[in-house]
Amino acid sequence: MASNAENSAVLQEILSSLKSLRLEQTQLASSVEAINGRVNALAGVKQSRDGIAHDASYPSPNIGPVSPKLPARGHASRDSVGSVDGYGRNLNGASSQQPLSSSPRRGSTTSKIILTSYPGQAGVDPLPMEWGAQDAQKRGPVVVSRSNNSIRRRNAIGAHGGSYSIYYALAVASHQLDTEHRPDYTNTEPAANIGPFKTWADPKKIVAMDPWGHLGPWLFKDILKNDGVEIRPTIAVTRAHMKVPELEESVRQGRLIPDGKICLNETGELNVTKFAVEPVWYLPGVAERFGIDEGTLRRSLFENTGGSYPELITRGDIKLFLPPIGGLTVYCFGDPAKMSDPNVKLALRVHDECNGSDVFGSDICTCRPYLIFGIEEAVKEAQRGGSGVVIYFRKEGRALGEVTKYLVYNARKRGSDKASEYFKRTENIAGVKDMRFQALMPDILHWLGITKIDRMLSMSNMKHDAIVEQGIPILERVPIPDDMIPEDSRVEIDAKIHAGYFTTGKVMTLEELNNVQGRAWEDVDH
Amino acid sequence: MASNAENSAVLQEILSSLKSLRLEQTQLASSVEAINGRVNALAGVKQSRDGIAHDASYPSPNIGPVSPKLPARGHASRDSVGSVDGYGRNLNGASSQQPLSSSPRRGSTTSKIILTSYPGQAGVDPLPMEWGAQDAQKRGPVVVSRSNNSIRRRNAIGAHGGSYSIYYALAVASHQLDTEHRPDYTNTEPAANIGPFKTWADPKKIVAMDPWGHLGPWLFKDILKNDGVEIRPTIAVTRAHMKVPELEESVRQGRLIPDGKICLNETGELNVTKFAVEPVWYLPGVAERFGIDEGTLRRSLFENTGGSYPELITRGDIKLFLPPIGGLTVYCFGDPAKMSDPNVKLALRVHDECNGSDVFGSDICTCRPYLIFGIEEAVKEAQRGGSGVVIYFRKEGRALGEVTKYLVYNARKRGSDKASEYFKRTENIAGVKDMRFQALMPDILHWLGITKIDRMLSMSNMKHDAIVEQGIPILERVPIPDDMIPEDSRVEIDAKIHAGYFTTGKVMTLEELNNVQGRAWEDVDH
Repeated sequence: MASNAENSAVLQEILSSLKSLRLEQTQLASSVEAINGRVNALAGVKQSRDGIAHDASYPSPNIGPVSPKLPARGHASRDSVGSVDGYGRNLNGASSQQPLSSSPRRGSTTSKIILTSYPGQAGVDPLPMEWGAQDAQKRGPVVVSRSNNSIRRRNAIGAHGGSYSIYYALAVASHQLDTEHRPDYTNTEPAANIGPFKTWADPKKIVAMDPWGHLGPWLFKDILKNDGVEIRPTIAVTRAHMKVPELEESVRQGRLIPDGKICLNETGELNVTKFAVEPVWYLPGVAERFGIDEGTLRRSLFENTGGSYPELITRGDIKLFLPPIGGLTVYCFGDPAKMSDPNVKLALRVHDECNGSDVFGSDICTCRPYLIFGIEEAVKEAQRGGSGVVIYFRKEGRALGEVTKYLVYNARKRGSDKASEYFKRTENIAGVKDMRFQALMPDILHWLGITKIDRMLSMSNMKHDAIVEQGIPILERVPIPDDMIPEDSRVEIDAKIHAGYFTTGKVMTLEELNNVQGRAWEDVDH
Repeated sequence: MASNAENSAVLQEILSSLKSLRLEQTQLASSVEAINGRVNALAGVKQSRDGIAHDASYPSPNIGPVSPKLPARGHASRDSVGSVDGYGRNLNGASSQQPLSSSPRRGSTTSKIILTSYPGQAGVDPLPMEWGAQDAQKRGPVVVSRSNNSIRRRNAIGAHGGSYSIYYALAVASHQLDTEHRPDYTNTEPAANIGPFKTWADPKKIVAMDPWGHLGPWLFKDILKNDGVEIRPTIAVTRAHMKVPELEESVRQGRLIPDGKICLNETGELNVTKFAVEPVWYLPGVAERFGIDEGTLRRSLFENTGGSYPELITRGDIKLFLPPIGGLTVYCFGDPAKMSDPNVKLALRVHDECNGSDVFGSDICTCRPYLIFGIEEAVKEAQRGGSGVVIYFRKEGRALGEVTKYLVYNARKRGSDKASEYFKRTENIAGVKDMRFQALMPDILHWLGITKIDRMLSMSNMKHDAIVEQGIPILERVPIPDDMIPEDSRVEIDAKIHAGYFTTGKVMTLEELNNVQGRAWEDVDH
């Protein structure tokens, strides 16, 4: 047995040890607290001390917007932008030319930046979205706006207007747009009735647009009015007169006869109903169309766009995405109701944008000629009592963009511009020969109530297959007439025919393709 | 001296205290661990246990790509996607229709998702970027790709191809594009020489495009080859023949005389040099153009696009952004070298996209007519020994997009379509009357070496002012001839003239504007 004295010494040592431990414990706890603050700043989540999570970044509906007079600078809490690691340090540091603190801002944002949100997070309460529900009210509105009353209720990732959200951001940043502005939709209703069709209630038939997108503000006006949630149209329908110089020539030559209703007069003036559609992607449906799982799609959309939209990763509960890409425009000739009438004929051209030809008449491809042919045939079908439709997709340069397209042109023209090497040139540069991916294209046909196509004004096997796979039969395929093909674009059209494009003419052998050659640049230099 | 009993009591207290401490210690440790996991998930940083920071998400340059045979699912560490709060839980939970784990992926990504990155983070080592440096090597290449060898070295936020990065993501997700593909730029070099001009080395004159963007892969071929860093062109220059039906008519009517070099023949075929330019924004410069600070710009770009590109917030060290918007195309008639020659005349049209008119000839606006007039005048200037330039900007519907544009058309046509109410209609819906913001537009003029404009084929005061503010004088402004203005577009043009558009004709009073009225829809229904 140890003596009291010995015990006492041990006890003293133990006590001193304990005191050290408690000090370390306190330091550790404060360390944890500091880390916690940093995590909060990163995640934008603030756990309140009383255990009830609340998020300071989502203004309470009762608080209202931050006063425009209140500057956002001088962030009070550690959750503010200033404490986002690296931001404050590097943006305001020596390497920076200007101070980067935010100017006073109007409207919807507080001083805190939310890098991403999480499901179930306090303040996050998405409006129910039952994609494919038959009843519009049950389906619910698409809400993507981050304005005051909408940010909690968002059920979609992205922003309205496709890529034009960037310009919207510039407008807000430069104080040219009041974020409190609420659109006045008086008189903007669709200029033609459409549907609803059975397809609108099929979550597999329409996955890339909102079938109720033209009616949002009117269908959901109570939510819009009572909750102040922003609901914008993603589809607009209008009517117009159009005049295409080639069709004036058609009238002159007697190919097109003015009827006073569809083709109005001797100048070839046309009466048209137009539908502009912005993409709204139902991610599980889009993934299925591509034969991949939703996680792969989300991850690729996030990573291969440069790490945009982290909510694609963190908000698995949100199934909708409004991607920053161009949409499509439907040009309908004749009564729009006839598009879905199985008893009359339908002529259809599905056209992918090619600005260099469509607007500027480049002779290296058949784009504008085929488009003009499509319009003329569509008009004629409508004049015969059927329906004529041209759909214009914003997929410049096979959805590779114009820079890549020009690089390909250069490689073709500097090499030997042969039909046999046509696709290889694009693949060498872009890694694929085509990125237009027609898998989502047929959605618009389903939406318009189109159940069969009598005359398909396209030779593309990719468009054909995508439509037929969606259960819409194509009864006749109509190639571009030979005399409309510019000489220098034979390389393209012959290569495409060899690769599977439809033709009523000859399919060349590889050897013959080798002899189809475009104008070299020597000929261009006069 | 303490008794045994007393010692015993102290011992009991110490023991109890120790037990508390251990419990608290355990809780604290688990707290730290939890926070650590969350930090890792947020930041994508993994601190290795041995104290040497490394980042598992950035493959070591020596390790090479993940084998395509290795499935990414079954994430081993808490840093993987599965542990991103909410993702694993909700994507794989009951509400999900399909499992959302990632499929085996090729190439550049490991199993971990990086929501954003931070400056100074291990594995982050951006290539130096000295915007405005006179020497291209000193300036450095724009690196935005997230491929294996580039992701550490990125000095730009965003992705190549503007909005088409979304299609790139689809191509990768659906395994139609091998992320290991490296572009072969053989023969893709610019088809015309341009610059360098003094403006290329002025960080204030060019802020929205990369002045070296047409030469990237060649200027920096060593970095590309030795380090495997991806450097893509953001500008491409090609040559073409184009045929515009209205100009064929011009030749027929004797307004345009074929010269065999610029206007090649009786069909009005034109010889043209084309420059496609993708936007590359130097954020401090863009902010300055808009008169705002960089922080406000970054924050608005992040928040008002739906929370895209968190690196806009966290990577203050990265000053470049490739936004997901369309770019521009320059159509140059005559010798491109003459654009920068102060001794010859320059005729210029700056045109903002209007698909409905430019392609489909809608008669509600003057877009295509003015564009055609611009092309014809540009060609004539080139024929006279000067230079003719048309620049086409992708800013559909005043950069509001086509859906908003159609809504405005409806409101105009259903109301009384009066010139006096023209701008109000757009403002009611969009909150602004125009979102094209010409502030960045003059960059392309600086890049082309244009120092003065002899004939400006535009009436827009916004374009005029933006150019003149950039120090480029406009000597003459040329309105669209009256006989080219479609009847129904008088509303637009008269409203614009009243608002400040240039005219050599009459500026109407408000009362007179009230009498300029477009065709109502009653007239459309025949």
